[in-house]
Amino acid sequence: MAASALRVGVAGLGVVGAGLVSLLRANAEMIAARAGRPVVITAVCARDPHRDRGVDLDGLRWYDDALALAADPAIDVVVELIGGAEGIARALVEAALARNRAVVTANKALIAVHGARLAAVAERGGVALAFEAAVAGGIPVIKALREGLAADRLLRIGGILNGTCNYILTTMRETGRDFDAVLAEAQALGYAEADPSTDIDGIDAAHKLAILAALAFGRPVDFDSVHVEGIRRIGAADIGFATELGYRIKLLGIARRTERGIEARVHPCLVPDRAPIAQVEGVFNAVVAEGEFVGRLMLEGRGAGAGPTATAVAADLIDIARGSLVPVWGASSGALARLTSVPMAEFRGDYYLRLTVRDRPGVIAEITAVLRDCGVSLKSMLQHGQARSAAPDEAVPIVLVTHETPERAMQAAVARIAGLDVVVGPPALIRIETG
Amino acid sequence: MAASALRVGVAGLGVVGAGLVSLLRANAEMIAARAGRPVVITAVCARDPHRDRGVDLDGLRWYDDALALAADPAIDVVVELIGGAEGIARALVEAALARNRAVVTANKALIAVHGARLAAVAERGGVALAFEAAVAGGIPVIKALREGLAADRLLRIGGILNGTCNYILTTMRETGRDFDAVLAEAQALGYAEADPSTDIDGIDAAHKLAILAALAFGRPVDFDSVHVEGIRRIGAADIGFATELGYRIKLLGIARRTERGIEARVHPCLVPDRAPIAQVEGVFNAVVAEGEFVGRLMLEGRGAGAGPTATAVAADLIDIARGSLVPVWGASSGALARLTSVPMAEFRGDYYLRLTVRDRPGVIAEITAVLRDCGVSLKSMLQHGQARSAAPDEAVPIVLVTHETPERAMQAAVARIAGLDVVVGPPALIRIETG
Repeated sequence: MAASALRVGVAGLGVVGAGLVSLLRANAEMIAARAGRPVVITAVCARDPHRDRGVDLDGLRWYDDALALAADPAIDVVVELIGGAEGIARALVEAALARNRAVVTANKALIAVHGARLAAVAERGGVALAFEAAVAGGIPVIKALREGLAADRLLRIGGILNGTCNYILTTMRETGRDFDAVLAEAQALGYAEADPSTDIDGIDAAHKLAILAALAFGRPVDFDSVHVEGIRRIGAADIGFATELGYRIKLLGIARRTERGIEARVHPCLVPDRAPIAQVEGVFNAVVAEGEFVGRLMLEGRGAGAGPTATAVAADLIDIARGSLVPVWGASSGALARLTSVPMAEFRGDYYLRLTVRDRPGVIAEITAVLRDCGVSLKSMLQHGQARSAAPDEAVPIVLVTHETPERAMQAAVARIAGLDVVVGPPALIRIETG
Repeated sequence: MAASALRVGVAGLGVVGAGLVSLLRANAEMIAARAGRPVVITAVCARDPHRDRGVDLDGLRWYDDALALAADPAIDVVVELIGGAEGIARALVEAALARNRAVVTANKALIAVHGARLAAVAERGGVALAFEAAVAGGIPVIKALREGLAADRLLRIGGILNGTCNYILTTMRETGRDFDAVLAEAQALGYAEADPSTDIDGIDAAHKLAILAALAFGRPVDFDSVHVEGIRRIGAADIGFATELGYRIKLLGIARRTERGIEARVHPCLVPDRAPIAQVEGVFNAVVAEGEFVGRLMLEGRGAGAGPTATAVAADLIDIARGSLVPVWGASSGALARLTSVPMAEFRGDYYLRLTVRDRPGVIAEITAVLRDCGVSLKSMLQHGQARSAAPDEAVPIVLVTHETPERAMQAAVARIAGLDVVVGPPALIRIETG
């Protein structure tokens, strides 16, 4: 194969960048055979040229300034591994696309927030803007949606999109410990960042869901329409009650095609413990897609880490080397559907509600009267008998499970219940999904 | 979009062919937007023009002869849905490729047996030979391996590749019924063919495994090197004992890269009941891939049926309409690796062995002596106490589980044990996999 090499410039040499250097070297011959030409990193950009990254960077052109890398005329593709929706990552990608240079990125925030506009620029320039690594790491879910399922009309897409949250929830269930303790441990193990808010508040999952929903439904990516709740408020008590009721708690991102438009939401869910998604534990991710013709698919694997993410970046590079050019969002920008987004207030579902109440006569009557007045129908109630010796007025937990209820009615009921004298502390409301 | 339509000729109008007609019509506008041009069936070929297939075929050119369809100059792609490694299906695909016409097929037997040669012809002609629908129906596993994981060196590929067998084994476990009864029911429900041997003897799964192994390891497809055993000999007793031991029985296809070459085998396996693959039940398929960098991935979904299979065929058509042309086996024929195949005799693993023996003193000593002499080390033994009233010499089952043992030693031991006077009927030997 005498074809000229694809020359790659990598901006950002953290764990994934170093992993990409290792992968492209270790499998250079195989990748050249598959791509039809060598895929070679020729330039890199990072802050500290002296840090030991565990890979040999000798012979590569080194840039301190990402914009200078984008301007290097001897590069065919820029790989952006800096991260963040704004700042230098955005400037780099814009600069590269403006020069009609292909871009591969693992940056979910950038693609979720600016992906529609960036795609239009890439389209005008006839170059690739690829982001397989931005969602679910090593699982080739972008390719599955944009190409593998391109013929089907998808009804639902989503799943477990954040490994940090899934690790925390799995460990809480396995150990019975509370959120804060498990988060601290996850930080010590490197599974959670020092500032964990992007992960545990659901933002990261929402970025990914916005990208998946755009591809699945063929509409412009719209991060702002995703409803987001994180896992900070999930207590050990909720994990315990969920187990008792035959559920596991997962942070899910779910986007659905409904009669009124696209519903997209990230929040903790109770899922039946026999559902396939409930079996996905620890740092693993899983994406579930449901289509009219194809039925239900689940793709499961490692959603983060140097190896899986580098594999996804390199797959995009091989596509570019092969000359494949699929529209960034599956169809040209002009051909995407303008689908309405359905606000969360219009959601309907089953709910789990945990309350801490004073153990005194009439409490249940008071609470169920509020639910009745708000039009919330109860499916079941869980209240453990207190020891005979329990002090009167002691705080005890009760758990209520509802039939299908409008979100609006449920929120109104919870607000009123939270204000009752007999209710101690904030109610915990978690939606129930079938899986 | 003013681009000219991709004109498709479909040979074979069974369930999948009719499904493809429905799918391309139902989603015509969306598919045109994604493919950049309309994808339109213009000609069909089937035996009986009068049979009601539930789809309107008016206005399509009708051929009785598949070779005439292949010669139609007003067709860009031939879709082969006839089936079988030889005969008219093979002749049609050869004729189409000889005319430099792209081919899409769902024919796993043809691709497993003749895929290397057909790919070379397609490659010379610069046309696509696509077969996403040949393996695992609606799961885009061919694309995942050939493109999504193209950068990684895979170590293991396989899974549950035959929905008929998985349905039978699942139903046996759920109902406690025996193989013949469940097979008859599966036939009545349409989950098994009138002649079920291709499915239940493991041939279908072996065709698919041969294809997966070729893509995963980048070597020419080699069906003859796949070791094949089916599920006819799995009894209700084995299902029961497996459950008792914490396992489920699955027909798995497994291909592994070992130090001595590629091992590829299809046979029933005991897998731990908590393993993800054990949770894949009924007609569902699942493919597990394990790579050096990407780790372990599992893709699960419907492996057969009109909708899923048509979705896969249509995805291939969209790729062709988009002008994507990836090498048939992931790299050009000349660049594929000549990897040795390891014969089954060199396999090593753990085994489950069920024997029916005369309930008399010394039986266990006799059997374990044979195992010792053959170098087979026992991990555990299961023997249920008989009722006091059991007649002396009554036939009773015992189950032995071994430590890792060479296949050769195990087969020698089983042959000798089968010849013992105290052993009644044929021993049941099932390999144990970790999942």
